[in-house]
Amino acid sequence: MDVTPGELAERAAKLDALNPLAHTRDRFLIPPDLVYLDGNSLGVLPAAVPAALEDAVRRQWGRGLISSWFDEGWWDAPLRIGDRIGALLGAAPGQVVTGDSTSVQLFNTLTAAARLRPDRRVLLTDPGHFPTDAYLTDSVAQLLGLEVRRVPASQVGAALGEYGRDVCVLSYPAVDYRTGELWDLSAVTRAAHEAGAVTVWDLCHAAGAVPLALDETGVDFAVGCTYKYLSGGPGSPAYVYIARRHHADVRHPLTGWHGHADPFAMQDAYTAAEGISRARIGCPPMLSLLALEAALTAFDGVDLRELRSAGLSLTSFFIEACDLLLAGRGFEVATPRAASRRGSQVALRHRDAARLVPELARRRIVGDKREPDILRFGFNALYNTHADALAAVNALRELTIAVTA
Amino acid sequence: MDVTPGELAERAAKLDALNPLAHTRDRFLIPPDLVYLDGNSLGVLPAAVPAALEDAVRRQWGRGLISSWFDEGWWDAPLRIGDRIGALLGAAPGQVVTGDSTSVQLFNTLTAAARLRPDRRVLLTDPGHFPTDAYLTDSVAQLLGLEVRRVPASQVGAALGEYGRDVCVLSYPAVDYRTGELWDLSAVTRAAHEAGAVTVWDLCHAAGAVPLALDETGVDFAVGCTYKYLSGGPGSPAYVYIARRHHADVRHPLTGWHGHADPFAMQDAYTAAEGISRARIGCPPMLSLLALEAALTAFDGVDLRELRSAGLSLTSFFIEACDLLLAGRGFEVATPRAASRRGSQVALRHRDAARLVPELARRRIVGDKREPDILRFGFNALYNTHADALAAVNALRELTIAVTA
Repeated sequence: MDVTPGELAERAAKLDALNPLAHTRDRFLIPPDLVYLDGNSLGVLPAAVPAALEDAVRRQWGRGLISSWFDEGWWDAPLRIGDRIGALLGAAPGQVVTGDSTSVQLFNTLTAAARLRPDRRVLLTDPGHFPTDAYLTDSVAQLLGLEVRRVPASQVGAALGEYGRDVCVLSYPAVDYRTGELWDLSAVTRAAHEAGAVTVWDLCHAAGAVPLALDETGVDFAVGCTYKYLSGGPGSPAYVYIARRHHADVRHPLTGWHGHADPFAMQDAYTAAEGISRARIGCPPMLSLLALEAALTAFDGVDLRELRSAGLSLTSFFIEACDLLLAGRGFEVATPRAASRRGSQVALRHRDAARLVPELARRRIVGDKREPDILRFGFNALYNTHADALAAVNALRELTIAVTA
Repeated sequence: MDVTPGELAERAAKLDALNPLAHTRDRFLIPPDLVYLDGNSLGVLPAAVPAALEDAVRRQWGRGLISSWFDEGWWDAPLRIGDRIGALLGAAPGQVVTGDSTSVQLFNTLTAAARLRPDRRVLLTDPGHFPTDAYLTDSVAQLLGLEVRRVPASQVGAALGEYGRDVCVLSYPAVDYRTGELWDLSAVTRAAHEAGAVTVWDLCHAAGAVPLALDETGVDFAVGCTYKYLSGGPGSPAYVYIARRHHADVRHPLTGWHGHADPFAMQDAYTAAEGISRARIGCPPMLSLLALEAALTAFDGVDLRELRSAGLSLTSFFIEACDLLLAGRGFEVATPRAASRRGSQVALRHRDAARLVPELARRRIVGDKREPDILRFGFNALYNTHADALAAVNALRELTIAVTA
């Protein structure tokens, strides 16, 4: 080891001092003496949330009651908040709506996407996709009589050569939930379009951390949760993006009355609303939704390129510290070292992962574990520091023994 | 008119004084000087909610962060709260789970129900069903290749005679959302079973107001919202009941990872959990869910037969006051006068409904309007009074002119 722990600590302090986003940490209520590197699972509480929720409960619900649906803008909230998220995704207004869970949005969106290509029978998806994506893809395939082929994102080109004109939908994550690998949305989307297929991207581990340019990239559909890097709170509502060019044609299976063209006319037959409103389903969980809206103010004035740069600084420093401090201790960095292929988490493989994660937690350092042997450390550049990164690596060093000197 | 307004006011005061449930009104934060008869649309704020939500946000989310999923019982909350609701539905524990919207639950449940009778092609439903039920029934039928027949609950017997052995599912509301008519769950369910079909009941306008005996009645499936008589807050999560005898066989289309037998094993293929857990879908909106849990404490120690009796006293008195004070003013009581056929709302038809509802609201009396000419007044016996009922009728009298003397 050429660099001492003391020198690394100095480096961390210097990088934190130079961070142009250092001020946004004050937008969060972070428990003192906690090193929280699990914001890729549940983001920390934004400072704006408690007062907003108190207002939503006591004034809007308690005093406004039913009138708040229109007087307080509850009815439009899924669209209003959708646009706010859209701004983080590179989506022009009117293409994102919030509501329901990622699982429900996946089902609704995958079905609608497949229906755009009714003569095609193959659904391509990632063999390493998050389980709920895998399960819903299978379910939609069963309902529509499609076949699922599991092909890594890196091999999509070859698969399209083979199944080409029979592929209706490609369902892929922007960032792998285990390794944190960032896939090339642009290349996969282009290949899909060349084969006449449409894309459904899962943005759960990308939105709010990695700049996305959905409109520019030509993405067709995308879904994601809001409780990771968007810090919307436990189980905060998901969202769906539908490119404007598809709005007139998409037909969703979840034809709830909030997506009706004239919901309060209480008509007997479903007529889909114009625009992204047709992706609305039923009554959204307003308290969770308004908490999310307040949470998103943590992004006010934040330049997403600056956020990305700060995030890469954190993950790069973390990887460097691992290389320096954990050599010979059985760790393997599972996350790509090339910045362009990395989301905002670092995954380490270690055969003692199941022991190490709880031991870290006892030292007030929170990461998480994924099967079979992965330790995940998520970095949200709005509130994480290089000192956080170093604390985690130092603790891992203390908890393990070097086999080689 | 044989009874003077003064005498009716005395009657109201006496009935309110004798109400054994009068004390539960203090469990709600009712805006002073507001007569709120729209609890069948959005229930008022229970007093227990603000503190519970503050705790959920600042302590459980803010300080517990990811660990609260297990340390604070978030993971089990949908089941725990489901059991609490089940107790109000006449359901033994382990048959109700909360989450998602009524629309999503309808889709998931109707599909799972129809799959229990794969050789049958007819779905019977109510021509006057709430729009979202109608739309989702049509959507499920389209996906599964079924036919929808719209037959009033009162004519189900005849319809089963005609389509009998080809009917897979009957989808009906327990209480009509417009007229407040309470259908005979027991008779319809029995007729369905005699024909080999299963039932899906929408309990939105019944749960928390009308005693239900789902287990005893032999109901197969039921769904409902929680923001009406259960006062769970705007868009609070819905629930689904599945009779235990169906647990092993139901296959839902919304195979989200929370319904997996071993969700954290992150397996590639879906295996449904045992019991009602298999009806779980994705990550539930925890803040809205915990608000609902606190709200349900308003039912603590309440005898549901006493609640029903108090509710019928309110609606009977309201109808009586309408008869006495609104004669000759163009009103028609659309709700059945027989107590056994009445939920906990009274609907009046009047050609000026669209004018009268906002004029009532300006006088701080809140009901609502449904197409084409219905004024609805919901009575939640946990907080409404006979004085509320009389205030609404007196205001309607002031706002209309008698045509006949």
